[in-house]
Amino acid sequence: MAARQREISISEFFLKNRHLLGFDTPSKALVTAVKEAVDNAVDACEEAGILPEITVEISHRHGNILVVVEDNGPGIVEDQIARIFGKLLYGSKFHKLSQSRGQQGMGISAAGMYGQLTVGKPLHILSRVAGEELATELHVSIDTARNRPDIHKKKRLEWDHPHGTRIEMEMEGRHQKGPHSIDVYLKQTAIANPHVTISYKDPQGKQTRFVRSIDELPPRPKEIKPHPHGIELGRLIQMLSNTRCRTLLKFLVDEFSSVGEKTALRIIAESGRRLSERSYPRHIAHAQATALHRAIQNSRILAPRTDCIVPIGEQQLLRGLRNELAADFYTVTTRPAAAYRGNPFQVEVAIAYGRSGEDHVEVDASGHMHKTSARGKGAASNLIGGKNEPVYLLRFANRVPLLYQQASCAITKAVIQTNWRAYGLHQPKGTLPIAPMAVLVHVASVWVPYTSESKEAIEPYPEILKEVKLGLQQCGRELAQYLRRNLQLRKEYDKRLYIEKYLPHIGIALQEILELADEERDAAVNKLDDALHTSRATGRPDP
Amino acid sequence: MAARQREISISEFFLKNRHLLGFDTPSKALVTAVKEAVDNAVDACEEAGILPEITVEISHRHGNILVVVEDNGPGIVEDQIARIFGKLLYGSKFHKLSQSRGQQGMGISAAGMYGQLTVGKPLHILSRVAGEELATELHVSIDTARNRPDIHKKKRLEWDHPHGTRIEMEMEGRHQKGPHSIDVYLKQTAIANPHVTISYKDPQGKQTRFVRSIDELPPRPKEIKPHPHGIELGRLIQMLSNTRCRTLLKFLVDEFSSVGEKTALRIIAESGRRLSERSYPRHIAHAQATALHRAIQNSRILAPRTDCIVPIGEQQLLRGLRNELAADFYTVTTRPAAAYRGNPFQVEVAIAYGRSGEDHVEVDASGHMHKTSARGKGAASNLIGGKNEPVYLLRFANRVPLLYQQASCAITKAVIQTNWRAYGLHQPKGTLPIAPMAVLVHVASVWVPYTSESKEAIEPYPEILKEVKLGLQQCGRELAQYLRRNLQLRKEYDKRLYIEKYLPHIGIALQEILELADEERDAAVNKLDDALHTSRATGRPDP
Repeated sequence: MAARQREISISEFFLKNRHLLGFDTPSKALVTAVKEAVDNAVDACEEAGILPEITVEISHRHGNILVVVEDNGPGIVEDQIARIFGKLLYGSKFHKLSQSRGQQGMGISAAGMYGQLTVGKPLHILSRVAGEELATELHVSIDTARNRPDIHKKKRLEWDHPHGTRIEMEMEGRHQKGPHSIDVYLKQTAIANPHVTISYKDPQGKQTRFVRSIDELPPRPKEIKPHPHGIELGRLIQMLSNTRCRTLLKFLVDEFSSVGEKTALRIIAESGRRLSERSYPRHIAHAQATALHRAIQNSRILAPRTDCIVPIGEQQLLRGLRNELAADFYTVTTRPAAAYRGNPFQVEVAIAYGRSGEDHVEVDASGHMHKTSARGKGAASNLIGGKNEPVYLLRFANRVPLLYQQASCAITKAVIQTNWRAYGLHQPKGTLPIAPMAVLVHVASVWVPYTSESKEAIEPYPEILKEVKLGLQQCGRELAQYLRRNLQLRKEYDKRLYIEKYLPHIGIALQEILELADEERDAAVNKLDDALHTSRATGRPDP
Repeated sequence: MAARQREISISEFFLKNRHLLGFDTPSKALVTAVKEAVDNAVDACEEAGILPEITVEISHRHGNILVVVEDNGPGIVEDQIARIFGKLLYGSKFHKLSQSRGQQGMGISAAGMYGQLTVGKPLHILSRVAGEELATELHVSIDTARNRPDIHKKKRLEWDHPHGTRIEMEMEGRHQKGPHSIDVYLKQTAIANPHVTISYKDPQGKQTRFVRSIDELPPRPKEIKPHPHGIELGRLIQMLSNTRCRTLLKFLVDEFSSVGEKTALRIIAESGRRLSERSYPRHIAHAQATALHRAIQNSRILAPRTDCIVPIGEQQLLRGLRNELAADFYTVTTRPAAAYRGNPFQVEVAIAYGRSGEDHVEVDASGHMHKTSARGKGAASNLIGGKNEPVYLLRFANRVPLLYQQASCAITKAVIQTNWRAYGLHQPKGTLPIAPMAVLVHVASVWVPYTSESKEAIEPYPEILKEVKLGLQQCGRELAQYLRRNLQLRKEYDKRLYIEKYLPHIGIALQEILELADEERDAAVNKLDDALHTSRATGRPDP
């Protein structure tokens, strides 16, 4: 039996388990490939301080699908191209704590691997670094048994872009419409990234352009060190033995965020076990490390720095929502930053309520009410469902829309666990509330804990659940206020209708009882009508 | 930016994403660690033809949990121990197509890595190969930056077991009761593995023993070659370039299952493109491979061999269920083997209905009915819920119970998509049916497509969904028959009660009308009573 024991390459593993990377069905594989390429492109542009211009083109080729994604990013230096596209688990984002779309160094190579598996063709890359005279063209596939790039062709050529990268992938794929489509992915990307312009051409040749509404890049997230409260014992031991610092004091101050000299000295004193500020980190024994770990956990330490997190911003979110979703009521809230396992994260929640286009009541300046209907673009707002449908969720992690695995996502669980009945919505037990409403939640973090390598859902860590719920509650309260006011208006309208119907009869009755002339009767009715209008227009609740 | 690009080791990746391997919370980590160790132990015993005897012991040590798992397996040769326990993606099961519990070469090393992370202690292994005089003792951890074993101590020593392996892992953990407990995992393991004996000692010192009810090992599943219909183009190209066969004919016959010479020749002829039986596989060009691939897909080829799949067996399943679940009605069905993406699999479904202990009606030999209640062990059957609770699911893949991620599992989806109302159960839309019932589904395959590395749920491939549904429908029909009969009996009982109540009054009426003597009246009543009993006892439905 021993003879059969063998090493398994990571590429072989994911080739056999490609559903783990989001490449299970031809339709999902297509969306995943586009997503990985676009996310990388936007990351690269932002890192280089370039306003992203992305082009996505899907077309048919030899019975397969050809995906082309092009960006105006900084380009990739020649000797990195092959490894970035031809090797799983290779990249710049895994080892640093910094908010970015990619984090694993797998997605785009996995897309290449999928193309290779289903149509047997390598990835085709064209990239030009600013300032270089020529672009590099490369055909690369993965040697899956070794997880290494196989370069098929490489040449230098002219390209009419000053800088940028173009990827062509041929793969088995199926282009579809609906909630899991490229269209929805791009639309949601536009909502959460109002600084990005995307041009999209679908296989039928239809062009869609999402034009940026903000001409400024979001601030660059800062890179941070780990926070001491999130460090497990084993990781601390590993850090102690890997550090270049020569004293424990310097180690604590340099390798962690939120630890100054004072805090470090307090932790060391608390640890006991003959540890001193001058202990040599690599010589610290297991029992000492355990004591140090306990002292760290028991110390009051400043909360993690939050400039490593860049939320989308309330104004930007509102603008994005208004652009893409026609609703009657919008509200948005940003939670303060928090941390799970030492990783800072921040939650933004927004709500869009009501299908513009359905009947509703408005009060004009004079206090008169009108029932209005069909306000223009109502029908187009396909992201908000009907009155009897569950709310539509827009889930984002580090500005990337999450389209699949909704049921296992922390965001979904938080929405279900929130008591929406308290805010006036119908909510069957253990389900999403039923309302014509879209709920947008964005979780930004230096390390998003996804439930799988395909990055489709966020693991429901208690800290994350809690923050999302608090955000939802804040928006829920705003919504309740709006609904109360709206309900009030509707009630008023109905009463008003009732009054208007009977006022003439009251007039006739008064005329008979008080023996009034016709003019006197009409004057009385008008007076009554005005008095009623005025009392309603103050907007105070009915006694 | 280029300078920051780096390789990511698979261990680092999973250390940071340990929830992907099932080590997210202390309570789940403990169950996962036990599961990985027990699954490996049973696999090893079966491979060596040994009836498995497994011991599991959980105890507290220094505020942490100590897990000890011991087996009577064949032991591990010394130079393999470190790599098996100290390296992710290393093992004997990944590269072959054969039904086994483990398949990734990750689980047990991941458990070690978790212990290392949370308490900083290496795994402690003791193993003795039959025939060797001494056992090997090893302390091993993972060098996560390189995904390589770090051996801390190694020695040879006496051990009173002739052969076997003992693993000790210290970790942060929380021992809990309930549906996600070691108790439930072991109980379900016993149901699906009636040839295994397990002794379990929990942290409170409570001993539980699951004794085997069958003294024979299940037949060894055969290893197979891939089926040609499940081969993607890219994989075919890879196989062509890796094969040692020197002709295309030999390649097709040797490297695939279900392909004989005749079929191979037919495929080659159909391919065209100047391919012949003597084409040298490595020299086949891309366009030729594409044509070959198409010809394979279009050819009629024998279905995959199924002796590579070993189901649990209907008798064994019934015995397991009866042992562990007290119910009123059991039924079981085995589907014929099928295939997804060329991988053979087979589905078994069983149902246990009714909580023994609740009222029910029985007919005795004379046709008289009795209402009985509380038949002994009813209360112990905690796996079957109440009348108003969703059915309890027991999910198994290759005889391993799946405890987590029920919602994303193909088995759950199949149960929800089955129309149980047709079988007389209450089922709210889109949910599990509501009934005092347990549903057991076992999916056996040479390669189970799990939804994550933690192997907690089966990916809902359409072929798998379909087979599970067909199995459920078969059991559902049996259940409906039972329920109809039962419902009938209840109705009869109620009518009978009604008749018995009024029969005396009918007697008195008859007596008055017909002027009968008391004896004549009693005789008439008895005759009526008998006639009614007889008509009921035939079991025919009421007119």
